[in-house]
Amino acid sequence: MLVNGNHLTTIWYEDDLDEVKIIDQRLLPHELVIITLNSLSQVCFAIKEMQVRGAPLISITAAYGMYIAAKENPNIQLLKQSGENLKSTRPTAVNLSWAVDLIIDKLIDIEDGARSKYLLNLANQMREDDINVCNEIGENGYKLIESIYNRKKTTVNILTHCNAGWLATVDWGTALSPIFKAKQKNIPVHVWVDETRPRNQGFNLTAWELLNENIPNSLIVDNVGGHLMQKGLVDICITGTDRTSLNGDVCNKIGTYLKALAAYDNQIPFYVAAPISSIDFNITNGLKEIPIEERNADEVSFMEGIDHNNERKKIRIIPEGSITKNYAFDVTPSKYITKLITEKGNIDANTNEIEKLKI
Amino acid sequence: MLVNGNHLTTIWYEDDLDEVKIIDQRLLPHELVIITLNSLSQVCFAIKEMQVRGAPLISITAAYGMYIAAKENPNIQLLKQSGENLKSTRPTAVNLSWAVDLIIDKLIDIEDGARSKYLLNLANQMREDDINVCNEIGENGYKLIESIYNRKKTTVNILTHCNAGWLATVDWGTALSPIFKAKQKNIPVHVWVDETRPRNQGFNLTAWELLNENIPNSLIVDNVGGHLMQKGLVDICITGTDRTSLNGDVCNKIGTYLKALAAYDNQIPFYVAAPISSIDFNITNGLKEIPIEERNADEVSFMEGIDHNNERKKIRIIPEGSITKNYAFDVTPSKYITKLITEKGNIDANTNEIEKLKI
Repeated sequence: MLVNGNHLTTIWYEDDLDEVKIIDQRLLPHELVIITLNSLSQVCFAIKEMQVRGAPLISITAAYGMYIAAKENPNIQLLKQSGENLKSTRPTAVNLSWAVDLIIDKLIDIEDGARSKYLLNLANQMREDDINVCNEIGENGYKLIESIYNRKKTTVNILTHCNAGWLATVDWGTALSPIFKAKQKNIPVHVWVDETRPRNQGFNLTAWELLNENIPNSLIVDNVGGHLMQKGLVDICITGTDRTSLNGDVCNKIGTYLKALAAYDNQIPFYVAAPISSIDFNITNGLKEIPIEERNADEVSFMEGIDHNNERKKIRIIPEGSITKNYAFDVTPSKYITKLITEKGNIDANTNEIEKLKI
Repeated sequence: MLVNGNHLTTIWYEDDLDEVKIIDQRLLPHELVIITLNSLSQVCFAIKEMQVRGAPLISITAAYGMYIAAKENPNIQLLKQSGENLKSTRPTAVNLSWAVDLIIDKLIDIEDGARSKYLLNLANQMREDDINVCNEIGENGYKLIESIYNRKKTTVNILTHCNAGWLATVDWGTALSPIFKAKQKNIPVHVWVDETRPRNQGFNLTAWELLNENIPNSLIVDNVGGHLMQKGLVDICITGTDRTSLNGDVCNKIGTYLKALAAYDNQIPFYVAAPISSIDFNITNGLKEIPIEERNADEVSFMEGIDHNNERKKIRIIPEGSITKNYAFDVTPSKYITKLITEKGNIDANTNEIEKLKI
């Protein structure tokens, strides 16, 4: 999507330099910095420290990581170990281990000397596939916004949580893709952007994406959404998902569940943009079975931003001696989800419908 | 309650100096600064800019403000104007206008020369009354914690939102008073402290109160409570209220509603500590009728804390050019409230029960 009027994606391979480039998303929205991934440990760092984040983008970064590892040494045992290292960087998103396991499976029949080239082609193909999937999710989700507009005839107010925009994928995004499509098709929209503490991906990333695409939006703290829904100021909620279980439960950024409850209480549709890659067909009950990542307590205790000299600063926002707990995700039970928006259409969040998507 | 082992209250009159003192709560938890209120405009500033905050404390500060105004000029018309100025500082809390109207009513029959002394006595009496009310709320709420402990026999996990501790009153607090009582009576408790964006009263004030009273607590962002409740990590929720309507709806810090929904969804009791002074008997439907204060957008856009040199710093946490909206309160419908904890006992949140409290 657009950044300062130029088209940009989150990850790409530069043929002439034989280099994989990413945006260091930790520095957004205050600085746009492009970096090169040169080693497997750099790739693991990028995923773990969230230079790249978002379930779809993580798996594509891991695929390029396998290519970089194979360039270092194409031995299958070493590559299997590299895969394990990549899988251990983030435990909740299923795409990551799904992608790595798939890649390892395919590699076994490839000769050592051909592996790195094979892996590069595979990563490039996965990148293209992701763009296409997000494009389809955009088209399917756009119809939902359009139908509200056809009924309402005025600006459609959309609430989203965290960042499931193009920065979470390669391009388009998942939850934001329908919004970008609506804008392109001249449907007037306004987006309520949840801050998404503790890492503030809403303010840092979603707001930045929308500003760059010139889409009207207002920033709110995570506490506000329920009040807005009570007052009729939200027409539709759309979020992403880090892992979707077979029964339609959605594991997404912490706080998603609270917004789904409020939407349900106020009879506002709550949609989840769920690429098929987010579905874990082995998990029959998301609420009980999906492991929830607990991240470093410092993410809660410290906050980063820009001071009055436009310099990046980190401040402590808790009393000395306090203990913080940092659960990164929660699970929204399927009963609170109106539909899943997938690349194959908008479906009910239940086992029967989800099973049909199994390839 | 205790601060560094010494007993402190939020507001008091020093007889020998003829001075009203408060804690400047904006500087907590990093600095403890006591200031003197010397003029009506200083009092208005203190309420509006939240040097003092919390519905009960605001009304007592206003009472001392009327005393300070009467010392300047005891003319009744001027005092009525002073009352209007005080009432306009914060629109949502009913205690404030309730207190000011009551004071003006009583003043009319007092001669000019006797007014300031009368007002001082009144303010001192209101301060004492507030301490007693909070003490009673503590005793009544404590019974609820005790009964969970008697069933569970291990640490009782309590979730609270914002700060309804002693810093929101004169002493004891409302929602935290039962917790202080439980601690004094050796019931093991652990408190989940919501950050409470955008002003972070949970991290800044509630956490600081609990640390000083040596009560185990963990700090969490506002998004986490629902997940904790799903996982059985919360036994009871207790919050305060800024205004309670006749039908039992509770207007409290933005985000309270989301926690009440999660408690309801997980069958966890959700109690609201509601002094009778918080009840607006004229409002029959809180959700529809209570005005919601919209505060300065900068509260969302900037964050204050301590840098690595232990110096107070303010940082911007949104992209340049973004618009923020800052709704300060929301309304929790009575159906989600298990009981109101009042100084006259724990009652159901409905018109029938609440009407009995009318004096």
